[in-house]
Amino acid sequence: MAQLICDRRDVDFVLHEQIKMVEHKAFKEFNKKAIDLIVSEARNLAIKEILPTFKDGDETGCKLVNGRVTVPESFKRAWKLYCEGEWLAMCDDPDVGGQGMPKLVGCAVLEHMVGANSAFMLYYGMTHGAAKLVEAFGTEEQKKLYMKKMFAGIWGGTMVLTEPHAGSDVGALTTTATKKEDGTYSIQGSKIFISAGDHDLCDNIIHPVLARINGAPAGTKGISLFLVPKYRVNDDGSLGDFNNIVCTGLEHKMGIHGSATASLSLGDKGECIGTLLGEENKGMAAMFRMMNEARAFVGMQGFAVASASYMYALDYARNRVQGRHLLAGKNPAAQNVTIIQHPDVKRQLLNMKVYTEGMRSLIYYYCKCVDIIHTTDDKQLKSDTIALVEVLTPILKGHITDKAFEVCSHGVQIYGGYGYIREFPVEQLMRDSRIFMIYEGTNGIQAMDLIGRKLGLNNKKSFQYFINQMRKTVDAAKQIKSIEKLAEKVNHAVSRLEALARDIGERARSEKVLNAFAFAHPFLEVTGEVTFAWMHLWRASIAAPILAQKIGSLEKKTVAAKAEKNKDIAFYAGQIESANFFIHTLLPSAYGKMDAILEGDSSVEDILDVSFGSK
Amino acid sequence: MAQLICDRRDVDFVLHEQIKMVEHKAFKEFNKKAIDLIVSEARNLAIKEILPTFKDGDETGCKLVNGRVTVPESFKRAWKLYCEGEWLAMCDDPDVGGQGMPKLVGCAVLEHMVGANSAFMLYYGMTHGAAKLVEAFGTEEQKKLYMKKMFAGIWGGTMVLTEPHAGSDVGALTTTATKKEDGTYSIQGSKIFISAGDHDLCDNIIHPVLARINGAPAGTKGISLFLVPKYRVNDDGSLGDFNNIVCTGLEHKMGIHGSATASLSLGDKGECIGTLLGEENKGMAAMFRMMNEARAFVGMQGFAVASASYMYALDYARNRVQGRHLLAGKNPAAQNVTIIQHPDVKRQLLNMKVYTEGMRSLIYYYCKCVDIIHTTDDKQLKSDTIALVEVLTPILKGHITDKAFEVCSHGVQIYGGYGYIREFPVEQLMRDSRIFMIYEGTNGIQAMDLIGRKLGLNNKKSFQYFINQMRKTVDAAKQIKSIEKLAEKVNHAVSRLEALARDIGERARSEKVLNAFAFAHPFLEVTGEVTFAWMHLWRASIAAPILAQKIGSLEKKTVAAKAEKNKDIAFYAGQIESANFFIHTLLPSAYGKMDAILEGDSSVEDILDVSFGSK
Repeated sequence: MAQLICDRRDVDFVLHEQIKMVEHKAFKEFNKKAIDLIVSEARNLAIKEILPTFKDGDETGCKLVNGRVTVPESFKRAWKLYCEGEWLAMCDDPDVGGQGMPKLVGCAVLEHMVGANSAFMLYYGMTHGAAKLVEAFGTEEQKKLYMKKMFAGIWGGTMVLTEPHAGSDVGALTTTATKKEDGTYSIQGSKIFISAGDHDLCDNIIHPVLARINGAPAGTKGISLFLVPKYRVNDDGSLGDFNNIVCTGLEHKMGIHGSATASLSLGDKGECIGTLLGEENKGMAAMFRMMNEARAFVGMQGFAVASASYMYALDYARNRVQGRHLLAGKNPAAQNVTIIQHPDVKRQLLNMKVYTEGMRSLIYYYCKCVDIIHTTDDKQLKSDTIALVEVLTPILKGHITDKAFEVCSHGVQIYGGYGYIREFPVEQLMRDSRIFMIYEGTNGIQAMDLIGRKLGLNNKKSFQYFINQMRKTVDAAKQIKSIEKLAEKVNHAVSRLEALARDIGERARSEKVLNAFAFAHPFLEVTGEVTFAWMHLWRASIAAPILAQKIGSLEKKTVAAKAEKNKDIAFYAGQIESANFFIHTLLPSAYGKMDAILEGDSSVEDILDVSFGSK
Repeated sequence: MAQLICDRRDVDFVLHEQIKMVEHKAFKEFNKKAIDLIVSEARNLAIKEILPTFKDGDETGCKLVNGRVTVPESFKRAWKLYCEGEWLAMCDDPDVGGQGMPKLVGCAVLEHMVGANSAFMLYYGMTHGAAKLVEAFGTEEQKKLYMKKMFAGIWGGTMVLTEPHAGSDVGALTTTATKKEDGTYSIQGSKIFISAGDHDLCDNIIHPVLARINGAPAGTKGISLFLVPKYRVNDDGSLGDFNNIVCTGLEHKMGIHGSATASLSLGDKGECIGTLLGEENKGMAAMFRMMNEARAFVGMQGFAVASASYMYALDYARNRVQGRHLLAGKNPAAQNVTIIQHPDVKRQLLNMKVYTEGMRSLIYYYCKCVDIIHTTDDKQLKSDTIALVEVLTPILKGHITDKAFEVCSHGVQIYGGYGYIREFPVEQLMRDSRIFMIYEGTNGIQAMDLIGRKLGLNNKKSFQYFINQMRKTVDAAKQIKSIEKLAEKVNHAVSRLEALARDIGERARSEKVLNAFAFAHPFLEVTGEVTFAWMHLWRASIAAPILAQKIGSLEKKTVAAKAEKNKDIAFYAGQIESANFFIHTLLPSAYGKMDAILEGDSSVEDILDVSFGSK
């Protein structure tokens, strides 16, 4: 098998030909050669050290024995190498212990690591997210004590929000914080579904915990954020006593068994001490500031796992011999062929290909936007790009993870009966991928975020800016004769989306608000599909001129003959076919869905609880 | 929780109001009261005895220890009661030990049993299928020895087809049969993926085995069917020696852990003796005769599991309190509500409801067709209905199982984080449901069957007959004022499907055959969606006049007020909302897909293997 996890050629295409680095002095040392070296090193680590932990993570899983949580043994070596390679904070400021690399490069690195073992990389995700909270809201003291050790992966991090009756409704939480004389707080409460909530990868775990200070207002307005370590930390940074955060159970999950999903009891059997992170009652606001990054990371998880499934399925379809070619007819002498030659298998592979590619472009584009925000001096561009990231976040989290699960399901299907057994990785990838649609805000919540907040953001200008970015690609593509028709189709799709957004946005602000929200998820779906169409048109608009230049003609037979002998031509020709397939064959389903959203039938609002079935 | 597995009210509706029994002297003792009693008894057994085995099946699974395969202990009691209740052959001829009941009633029974534990009911499915083979092709001797014990569940059955390199391509199998002097055959070979292939539920297991007699032609033409018992059977029916069918392994699967999926080695360590079932080299034809029943049963599995997931999700959504109502706005005094009141949860529930209902109607309709075939004296009706069953089979197997998996995935999503953990049944139901898209011919193969064989069947008249049945429902519905608009929409959908079928059928018989097959699965999808629209219009055309009669007006507020107090009105009102939702909101996606199929973009044919990614 030549390609594992992801197709390096496509990674390079997106990095260097499609999305491209932000040109800025902060990134001046990251030329093409340097980037390629970093990606190669990451790929090496991912394939040689992280991928071998994939199956062990699933089969051994995490264990809670005598109050101690252990991760699969193989994770320890991988974590050590990952941390020693200084990958964890590669895109963070050198001042906080990072490497100051562009997010775009970090993106290429992450897709390899996450694609190798998404459960393992949750320990990175949680630790990095928690460290960013300390960086953003910590006092000098807190930063000094915790931050660098977290960015180095010596200490782990989490995000301690959920309680049994406060899941999506975080404001309903009941964990309390009582201020002590020395200014610290005594924390008491029970939390569930804490990813990386307890484990033995790190010497200490630093928990950002949401709790309510005694006497604080009800709901989200009375929630504060605390930094609560598993072991107390002395002033010199050495570890002190156990801080009475007890793991009371691990969830038995459908997938991501390598990630310890813990129930934690805080301060139940002895004092649990935390320090306030940020201001009193501003805990939710702090969490929200980290939300885009966290949600984009979930989109990355979906994408990377889908990409891995595609690579396995492609390899399997190229090697599995079964049945004769459809054109062999009744010729008894016809040999059996590899299953990639069967139209329905090929259709499914192309489906996996176009979604994987669309996701890659979209996520890299998002990361480039983050780079622009951090480097540009152009205030207008900066604020426009901040808004664009807001609009893109629910699409990344919601639509990518929805489609990633479908891609993984295709991966299973291409393997046939073998796809359903644990011997092959596609089975686990599908189970693993199912959580991404749920955590960090279910995809229903992403859809509500899109129509409830993002459509109206900045007096609707932010969504318009997003539409305008698509138009730019369309306008450029229209100039390229060979893909003119594709450009027209995407133009039509963008116009339809623009009109639909206006319509549903108005409904959401009228007495028809329930109707609008009943169509929130379908609207997220069609927005996501048009976004992918945009990304494919963009890809084709790069590939078409190169093909024209390399071979003079775009006539199919000429391209095919040359592609068989030249990998580069094969790649660019594949880009044109991806765009054709996505725009001609998949995108039209979105039009039907748009018609339905526009019609806005009221059955979801109208149907009574009792009419769903006997109670 | 009032309703487990399935909604009894809807079962009764389909049985008595929509599909209705065939009127025939063979069924004259099955009046409404008798049927209701049978269904109640089945429901009782399913809920009290089979459902408790559901989790045990998953967690304990099947085990192979010292060459012996064991099923979970709880299965044994359930199997005993199931067999003692004489459910296994309830629809079979009294002459062979059956109860002679209509298939339609058997369908209502089966959906309960399968919904309670689909893995457990595979032992029924395999045994029944094998017994039917003996009934259809066995000699008097074979029938005498095996058939009644199999129909009674004392001996189990299987279907031994697949070999490691002969999955979907059965004709490639290499298991051999050597004729002995006494006319029996010595069987040798290795088989995989044998459902119920070895277990300790029954005293003996009778394997119908596909093998090639020495010297037989290559491919499917040289395959014969043999009856090969696990323990040899003496002339008096008593058990003889072990017949050297060794279980060499059990698969570790994503789901249906309670079903033993065995690798079998036949005749490797001692002689394995079988008798020819049917004629030499006619093994494939024999299997094909059983195929519709087997495939319809897989459709039933998908449906029943989806229905169970819907019942759990509905119950959860009615009881889980989380977040405030969307219309509560910023009112701080607003209480939290049950999640069924959130539009996106309600949308997902309605989605589950309409697919579950559509599947139920379609499967019961199919069973009624089988009853018609077995009872009618009208030759034309009989041959038309046989053809209709041929057309419906790939839709039942392919589209129902595709959608069932989606329904189960919605079930997980409605539970949020709880949906991903093993504590709740929706997690297992989703894993269990994924196999239905694969076994008994992958859904890609179903799609090829539909366009490659079924569209052209009987000079295209069979598909036309299917279209005509839809039109009958449309014409009747057009006469009902309140659902006139729905009828028009479905009429449009049927006409579009009719035209599309002609188009893709022609492509499949032309040089564009590869293009046609690249769209086979999308065509199956749109055919399935139009079929569900038909079923919902049919349901609405029964509900609308009843509602009009009961409450005089179909004005929404009036209906709602009455429905809150009257379960029956609530049910019929729910039928109208189902039809509205399906036809207005879900069906339009199929139009977009139809457009794409008609356009017939060639990218699936055109893309080269090398363009899928680096090798």
